[in-house]
Amino acid sequence: KGFTVASEDGKYSATIRGRFQMRETVTGQGVEGADRRWTQEQQIRTVRLFLQGHVLNPDLKYTLQLAFGGNDFEAGSSSPLFDVWVEYTALRDLNLRVGQFFVPFDRARTIRESGLQFVDRPLIIGELTLDRDMGLMLSSNDFLGKDGVLSYNLGFFGGEGRNRFGASTPGLLYVARFAVRPFGAFDDDVEGDLQRLPKPRLMVGVAGAYNQKTNRQRSTTGTTFVIGTFDYAHAAVDTVFKYNGLSVLAEALYRDGSPNFRDGTVNGQPAREWSRSGWGYLVQAGYMLTSKLEATGRFDLQKVRSDSDPALIAQVETAGREVGVGLNAYLNGHAFKIQGDYAYQFGRTGPTRHLVRLQLDASF
Amino acid sequence: KGFTVASEDGKYSATIRGRFQMRETVTGQGVEGADRRWTQEQQIRTVRLFLQGHVLNPDLKYTLQLAFGGNDFEAGSSSPLFDVWVEYTALRDLNLRVGQFFVPFDRARTIRESGLQFVDRPLIIGELTLDRDMGLMLSSNDFLGKDGVLSYNLGFFGGEGRNRFGASTPGLLYVARFAVRPFGAFDDDVEGDLQRLPKPRLMVGVAGAYNQKTNRQRSTTGTTFVIGTFDYAHAAVDTVFKYNGLSVLAEALYRDGSPNFRDGTVNGQPAREWSRSGWGYLVQAGYMLTSKLEATGRFDLQKVRSDSDPALIAQVETAGREVGVGLNAYLNGHAFKIQGDYAYQFGRTGPTRHLVRLQLDASF
Amino acid sequence: KGFTVASEDGKYSATIRGRFQMRETVTGQGVEGADRRWTQEQQIRTVRLFLQGHVLNPDLKYTLQLAFGGNDFEAGSSSPLFDVWVEYTALRDLNLRVGQFFVPFDRARTIRESGLQFVDRPLIIGELTLDRDMGLMLSSNDFLGKDGVLSYNLGFFGGEGRNRFGASTPGLLYVARFAVRPFGAFDDDVEGDLQRLPKPRLMVGVAGAYNQKTNRQRSTTGTTFVIGTFDYAHAAVDTVFKYNGLSVLAEALYRDGSPNFRDGTVNGQPAREWSRSGWGYLVQAGYMLTSKLEATGRFDLQKVRSDSDPALIAQVETAGREVGVGLNAYLNGHAFKIQGDYAYQFGRTGPTRHLVRLQLDASF
Repeated sequence: KGFTVASEDGKYSATIRGRFQMRETVTGQGVEGADRRWTQEQQIRTVRLFLQGHVLNPDLKYTLQLAFGGNDFEAGSSSPLFDVWVEYTALRDLNLRVGQFFVPFDRARTIRESGLQFVDRPLIIGELTLDRDMGLMLSSNDFLGKDGVLSYNLGFFGGEGRNRFGASTPGLLYVARFAVRPFGAFDDDVEGDLQRLPKPRLMVGVAGAYNQKTNRQRSTTGTTFVIGTFDYAHAAVDTVFKYNGLSVLAEALYRDGSPNFRDGTVNGQPAREWSRSGWGYLVQAGYMLTSKLEATGRFDLQKVRSDSDPALIAQVETAGREVGVGLNAYLNGHAFKIQGDYAYQFGRTGPTRHLVRLQLDASF
Repeated sequence: KGFTVASEDGKYSATIRGRFQMRETVTGQGVEGADRRWTQEQQIRTVRLFLQGHVLNPDLKYTLQLAFGGNDFEAGSSSPLFDVWVEYTALRDLNLRVGQFFVPFDRARTIRESGLQFVDRPLIIGELTLDRDMGLMLSSNDFLGKDGVLSYNLGFFGGEGRNRFGASTPGLLYVARFAVRPFGAFDDDVEGDLQRLPKPRLMVGVAGAYNQKTNRQRSTTGTTFVIGTFDYAHAAVDTVFKYNGLSVLAEALYRDGSPNFRDGTVNGQPAREWSRSGWGYLVQAGYMLTSKLEATGRFDLQKVRSDSDPALIAQVETAGREVGVGLNAYLNGHAFKIQGDYAYQFGRTGPTRHLVRLQLDASF
Repeated sequence: KGFTVASEDGKYSATIRGRFQMRETVTGQGVEGADRRWTQEQQIRTVRLFLQGHVLNPDLKYTLQLAFGGNDFEAGSSSPLFDVWVEYTALRDLNLRVGQFFVPFDRARTIRESGLQFVDRPLIIGELTLDRDMGLMLSSNDFLGKDGVLSYNLGFFGGEGRNRFGASTPGLLYVARFAVRPFGAFDDDVEGDLQRLPKPRLMVGVAGAYNQKTNRQRSTTGTTFVIGTFDYAHAAVDTVFKYNGLSVLAEALYRDGSPNFRDGTVNGQPAREWSRSGWGYLVQAGYMLTSKLEATGRFDLQKVRSDSDPALIAQVETAGREVGVGLNAYLNGHAFKIQGDYAYQFGRTGPTRHLVRLQLDASF
C-alpha cells in the first residue's frame, strides 16, 4: 500500500499513501410531541493523504497527514493539517517526538483512525477526550526492553488544540500515560482481533493530564472562551483484550474544569462562560465470525457534575447514553472494509435517536 | 504522464498526476446608458491533483481528484474534493461505481475537464446541467459486447451536490443515460478530433433524471433553499460526431422544477423561493487546420418558462445567448495546449458582453 | 530529497517534495502604563508540498508549490496555491516564465523560503516588498554568457497579488531587476555561507517596479481598497556578500503611493482610504562558527512619508525598528535545521516588544 521510495544507502525513505471513507447515514430523531423525524445524508466522510518516511538515518522519522473531508476543517481555518511530526527513535527507552499529533491520553481516541471496528468512535469520546495538539512527547513502546510489557508517554503540549494561531496566555497541557501488557506485546493500536491471536493478550493503561489556562471549552476542542481561561484536570483508565477473534476495549474518562464559570462582558453585554466537568465510560467488543466478518457491540455512558455547564447537563440528560451493534466485512483487513452499524442514543429523559450507518473505508 | 508504481503481482497500482490552468480574461461589459466597461483578470484558474489506481485486483479501481484553484471551492467549505470513487469493473455489462463523481447526465458536462476545445464549457451548462454528486452508478461502456456500440448509465445520488454535510430530507436523484455509437466505438469523452479519424464516428445519447426534494436552486448546485425542498425533472439529448479532423458536439437540455415557488418566512420576514425551469441547446464544432492547430465555433441559447424564477427570466432575457470562436494549439495534445477564444454573450434586450480569453492548460 | 521519476527518453521528469516548519514563539509586548504582557504560541507554521519537473523536453520546466499551514491562506480564500508556473529555458539569455510566483523585485524577499538564516524574514519585508503575483517573466541568470556575472528579470504581473479572482480595472505591475556578480557566479538565492566559499563572492542588484491601479493597500498585499485604485512606484537596491563562512545581506526599499488618499462612501458613510508610502533598509549577517553552527545578527528600520497613511505613521513610530540575533544548527544544511532567534522591536516612542523564537525546519 502506498508508494515507497528509498535511497540506496538507506538514509532516506518516503511513502505516499491515501485513505478515504464514504458514509451513508440515516437518522431518526425523536421530537417532543411530534413524529420522529427521519433524515439521511451521504458523504465523502474523509480523504487523507500521508507522506511519511525517514531522513538522514532510519531513526529520524517524520509523518505528515492531511485531511480533506468537508468536516475535517476547524471552523475559521482552511488548513488540512492533522499530523505533522518528527520523531527520533534511536533510544528504545526514550523516543522523542515533536510536532502536531494525538495527545497520548486515552486508548479509545488514539487508536489509529483506519483501525476502528465501528463506523465512528463512541459518542463519549467527542466530549471527554483530549484531541490532537502541538507539542513534544517522550515515550517508549518497550520500556526497559521487557518484550513490550511496559510502555509510557510523557507529553507537553500547547493545550489549545490543532492548527491554532494567535498568541495565548502561557499555560501548557501536561500528559502522562503508562500501560502494561502483562502477557506480552501485541497491537492494541487497532481494534478487532483479525489475526485471531492464539494466546490471550491484555493491555491496561492509566493516564492523567492537566491543561493549564486553556481557552477552549472541551479543553483542547470546542468553543473558544473569550472572558478568560480555565484549568482542566483529566484522567483515564483503559484496557484492551484480544484472544482468538474476540476483542474487548473498555475505558473510563474523567474531566474536571475550574473554575466552574467566569462572568464577564462580551460585546458590551454581561455574559457567563462555563467549563464542562464530567465523567463516563465505554465498553465495546467484537468477535470474528469468519476470517473476514466481525460482529460488534458497544455501550457508553456520560455523567456530568451538577454544578457544571447547564448545556452539558442538558446534553447528558437527553443524549448521554449509547448502545450500538455493528457488522464489519474486512475484504482486505482494515485497508478495505465495509462497515455497518446501528446506534440508539438516549438519556434519562427526552427524545431518543436512532442512527443507522453504512461505510466503505479504503486505504491505498 | 504522472508517476506510476505497481506491485509485481499486479494486484496494486497507483498513479499520481497533476494538471493546471492559467487564464487571462478580458471582459467588455455593456452598461445601460454608459460606456462599455472593460476589465481584466489573470488567474491560476485551477490546479488538480489526481491519485488513481487499483487495489486487490485490476478490476477494483479508485480515483481521487483534488482541486485547489481559488474558484474551485464551494462557498462555506474548505474541502478540495472533486472526485472520490471506487469502481468494480469485472463485469463488462455491469460496472459498479460508488463515491463522488460526475452525475452521468449530459455529454457536454461530463466530457473530461482536460479535454475541452474551448477555454471553458458553454454558458448554458452552468445553468442547466447536473453537477458532481455523491452516489452509486451502474454502467457499461460496451453493453452486450457489441464493440462499444451500446452504453448505459444508471445512477442514484444524494441530489444535493458535492461535499455536502448536514442531514437532508430523504429524496434521491435518479439518473438514466443511454448512448449508441452506430459506427463503432470511439472516444467521445474528449472534444476535438486530434487523431483525424479515418472513418466517421457518431454517438447519440439520451438521458433523464429526477431529483426528489432537493434543497438547491439549480438542482445539484446553486443557492440552498431554506423554506422547503423542490422536485426537478431533467432531460438531455446529445450527439458527438468526429471525422477526419472535424468534430461536432450538440445537445439540448431541459429542466422542470416544481412547485414554481414556496412562500415562507426567513429571519422573521415573509419570503418567496423559486425553482428554475427552462431549456436550451448548444452546438459546437472544431476542425483541425494542422496536426496541432484547431479552429472552433460555438452557439448556445437558453429559454426560461414564463412562470419560473424572475431572476432566471431576467438572466435569460439579457444574457441567454452566446456565440463564440476559438483557436487551439495542441503542443502535446490535450496534455499541453494553448487556447484562445472569443465569446459574445447577449439576450433579446439589455447590455451585451464581450469575452476574450487566453489559456494554458498543462498536465504532468 | 523527494521522489523523482523520469522517463527513459529524458523527455519527462517529476519530483515530489515536502517541507514543514514547527515554531515556538514567546512574545513580551510592552503595554502603556502596565506590566509587559507575555504570551506564547506553538504552531505548525507551514507545510509545503512541491511537484516539479519538466515535460516534453528538459527545457520546459514546471513547479507547483502548495502551502497548507493555518496562516498560509489569504483571508476569504481556501486555495493553498503559492507557486504555479511553467518556464522555457532553452535560450540562455531569454528564459520565459508564466504563472504565479515571486515578483522578481528585492533579494531579501525572493530568497527561497527554505534558505533563511533567521526564523523569519525581516519586519520591513512584510510592509515594503512585492509579494507573489500572477504574470509573465523574461529573465536570464547568465546574461550574455559571462559566467553568471550578469543577470536580469523583466516582469509583467496582474498587480493584485496571488490567488485573486474577480475582474479588476486594467493596470499591470511592471518590474525590472538587474544584478551583477563581479567576482563570478554563486548562489545568492540562499542565506548563509554554509560552504565557506574559498573566494569572496558579491552580488549587487537594483530593481524598480510600477504597480498601476492596484486595489491593495500594500501594493500586492494587504487590505483591498473599495473606493478606488492607487498607483505605486517601488525601488530596491540590495547586495549579498559571502566569503569563508561569512555572509552579509543588505538592502534598501522604497515605495511611493499616489494619490495619498481617496475620499468616498463605504456602506453609505463617508470614508477615506490611504496609500502607504515609505522606505527603509535592512542589514543582516551570519558567520559559520563550525561546519554546522551559525551565529547571525540583523538590523532593520522603516521610515514613512509624513503625508501618508496615519496608521502606517503610527506603526513606524512605535515598531519601525528591529534588532535581532540568532543561532542556527544546520544538521543537514538548510534541509534539516534548528533555528533560534531573539528580536527587539521598537520605535521612537511607545511600548517595545521582545520576541524569542525556536524553530525546526525540515525538508524531505
